[in-house]
Amino acid sequence: MEKKVFLSEKDMPRAWYNIQADLPHPLPPPLNPATGEPITPDMLEAIFPMNLIEQEMSLSRSIPIPDEVLEQLLLWRPTPMYRATALEKRLGTPARIYYKNEGVSPAGSHKPNTSVAQAYYNKEAGIKRLTTETGAGQWGSALAFACNRFGLEIKVYMVRVSFDQKPYRRMMMETWGGTCVPSPSPDTSAGRGFLEADPDHSGSLGIAISEAIEDAVTSENTKYSLGSVLNHVLLHQSVIGLEARKQLESIGEYPDIIIGCAGGGSNFAGIAFPFIRDKIHGKDIRVIASEPTSCPTLTRGHYVYDFGDTAKTTPLLPMYSIGHGFIPAPIHAGGLRYHGMAPLVSRVFTDGLIEAKAYNQLETFAAGIAFARTEGFIPAPETNHAIACAIEEAKRAKEEGKERVILMNFSGHGIIDLPSYDAYLSGKLQDHVMPDEEIEKLLKELDEYPKPK
Amino acid sequence: MEKKVFLSEKDMPRAWYNIQADLPHPLPPPLNPATGEPITPDMLEAIFPMNLIEQEMSLSRSIPIPDEVLEQLLLWRPTPMYRATALEKRLGTPARIYYKNEGVSPAGSHKPNTSVAQAYYNKEAGIKRLTTETGAGQWGSALAFACNRFGLEIKVYMVRVSFDQKPYRRMMMETWGGTCVPSPSPDTSAGRGFLEADPDHSGSLGIAISEAIEDAVTSENTKYSLGSVLNHVLLHQSVIGLEARKQLESIGEYPDIIIGCAGGGSNFAGIAFPFIRDKIHGKDIRVIASEPTSCPTLTRGHYVYDFGDTAKTTPLLPMYSIGHGFIPAPIHAGGLRYHGMAPLVSRVFTDGLIEAKAYNQLETFAAGIAFARTEGFIPAPETNHAIACAIEEAKRAKEEGKERVILMNFSGHGIIDLPSYDAYLSGKLQDHVMPDEEIEKLLKELDEYPKPK
Repeated sequence: MEKKVFLSEKDMPRAWYNIQADLPHPLPPPLNPATGEPITPDMLEAIFPMNLIEQEMSLSRSIPIPDEVLEQLLLWRPTPMYRATALEKRLGTPARIYYKNEGVSPAGSHKPNTSVAQAYYNKEAGIKRLTTETGAGQWGSALAFACNRFGLEIKVYMVRVSFDQKPYRRMMMETWGGTCVPSPSPDTSAGRGFLEADPDHSGSLGIAISEAIEDAVTSENTKYSLGSVLNHVLLHQSVIGLEARKQLESIGEYPDIIIGCAGGGSNFAGIAFPFIRDKIHGKDIRVIASEPTSCPTLTRGHYVYDFGDTAKTTPLLPMYSIGHGFIPAPIHAGGLRYHGMAPLVSRVFTDGLIEAKAYNQLETFAAGIAFARTEGFIPAPETNHAIACAIEEAKRAKEEGKERVILMNFSGHGIIDLPSYDAYLSGKLQDHVMPDEEIEKLLKELDEYPKPK
Repeated sequence: MEKKVFLSEKDMPRAWYNIQADLPHPLPPPLNPATGEPITPDMLEAIFPMNLIEQEMSLSRSIPIPDEVLEQLLLWRPTPMYRATALEKRLGTPARIYYKNEGVSPAGSHKPNTSVAQAYYNKEAGIKRLTTETGAGQWGSALAFACNRFGLEIKVYMVRVSFDQKPYRRMMMETWGGTCVPSPSPDTSAGRGFLEADPDHSGSLGIAISEAIEDAVTSENTKYSLGSVLNHVLLHQSVIGLEARKQLESIGEYPDIIIGCAGGGSNFAGIAFPFIRDKIHGKDIRVIASEPTSCPTLTRGHYVYDFGDTAKTTPLLPMYSIGHGFIPAPIHAGGLRYHGMAPLVSRVFTDGLIEAKAYNQLETFAAGIAFARTEGFIPAPETNHAIACAIEEAKRAKEEGKERVILMNFSGHGIIDLPSYDAYLSGKLQDHVMPDEEIEKLLKELDEYPKPK
């Protein structure tokens, strides 16, 4: 048995998989918060190009990947799949653990799978410039990379506290020719408002979204781009699971359990949806979304209509949420600190097609260290949540004496996050579990809006 | 034409290539500085295990890679070879540029190719613990990774100024379970001496070497490990060139020009030596070592017997050198700030089998930015020297209207070095060219020792 399971470039998937075609119950539409009526495509046109809006609403099962996008994806795709033999040995488990390494992309995570597609479609629509927001910078750097590929300008509004404390991803954006400013910035009226109230405002993702959207709707030839949550983003990530299925097939394997960490839901959906299709058609598998106890969207949130952002500028989305007013604890898995969950992931969760598990920060870092010291690669703090879950399932397989096949998404490497490992190893990290009353209070604000069916 | 040229695991080389078997003139032996006599294997046994000393002195052309080492190398090898089509297009060159991506290893550079081999041989020899020195940390992190693979303890003496200013690689070592201390440290008598003279001593590579060697010779079951310069290190790196040759063969190509950056010489030798063998046997190719003008070992140094370290604790090595007393300018390509050049690389240089070019820091960063903005991957500052050379040769091919094939080693990624790109982009970097008088003065100290023949 070889260590890595490769897939040749010619076997790279030529089309994305759209789970909307197979859902047992259709996705409820996003709503206009002012009217309670479904959002129509033209309402989204101020911020997204029409070709992506069409993709967002498409019910086609298979959507061809344009050659220009494929050419970019081939820079790092198909990504290698590994058998985690050293980790299995450490655990003494009869389970066979496979992981898909999305950390090999130039930006170090799965995010470029959608950023190159979005940059391409915007360019096709005649757009010259994109704006976006970023927290720790994974998404901003992935979009800066993609805009460089297609000759688009980009401006990233980065939450000021991250901009100041975590400069590496800002430097990465600039190395690729992108512009990154701390948010709140003096460049938008929203930003100026916050700076007037407090010149040292540390910013928030909600404010950064407001700035990026304002910039997009008020600038020429400019659109806004989002790195998770939306249907088209999850669509673009389906290459992960499509490749994984081919790779496992090539060695005569099929997974019993599929695991991904879930923040907005895109890397989880990427690896899981092509297999959930099989489950919808009768296959007996378990699919697990792994999230932090400090932001327990699926495990403790409710299925509601909620805003995508804190500032309530987006349409109402049908999703599991702990409330848009949620202020996440400062855990190191920045990509998992989101109050909601992608509508498509929320839909398959409410339909019982997936499970969810929540893990404390300390146990995720213990899992990450165990992984680094067996498999060698240092995982991103987000990825550590998937690893914690895979380890738990591998131990369960041992207890039950079952030879299970576990497939996990290694969503990104942790090289830029090494200070979080340093904090863990020196005993400076702690767990942050959310009190129930807080969630109830945040969700109460949504009582006036309809509930998804 | 596919973007990447893959090589399957089963086609991974099973043996290292030892250029000593093909040298037109044999390598002069290292000398004992006290007697001027050649060093014998037993003199090295205090610091290296005998199996590695035998490899150091072996004249066999082909040395089998042990299965246990191969298993570790397969974690990231064979490394992908890329055709740099976007860079070619930007340059408008008829040259076809291929690069071998050594940045995909868990430590992010070519260094683990030898660290896993060295850890294995030490373990085989019954050694329980290794020591080494590190500057910016590339080697220390690669050896920490390797020691973790084979269950060895490791202590890395890291130059204090880097330990304080560049903590990421220290954190990487600790994530893999290694110990890393700032040098000078209170843990050795050499370190205590320097600390007594100056409690805030910022350290140097020479001091760190002295500490690591003292620790190895005074501790039980402990040996010392070196990341470049020595014959066995270059041997272990030959997998790069052996793979590259197979990959090019698989697409019907053979390089006209082979380029690697050269500090101690190991990544350069790794990609070049298997092709230099062909050159020795009549093939018409050019092989270029690319170095910084601030540390111009090959382009302006002399072929002499010199010490491997500043503190004069090593045997005298037959090598191109600008003198062991050299204090390198603070350029960002930390891996290229070494006063000497591997004896094997020095030998092929003096025999006219390779050329050398030196580049200023600013032009290497311009090359790195051009690469990142065309090929996507962000290169290490050391790697930028190879890229600057490849770009120069591609432009020459354009001027001359020649369809040349250029092969370059992408020795590592620059993610941990992003602050150097930040400094470049904000205009804070400068060039550091060494005055001739300084080199002459440093080399004068060596007049009392024999010259290599």
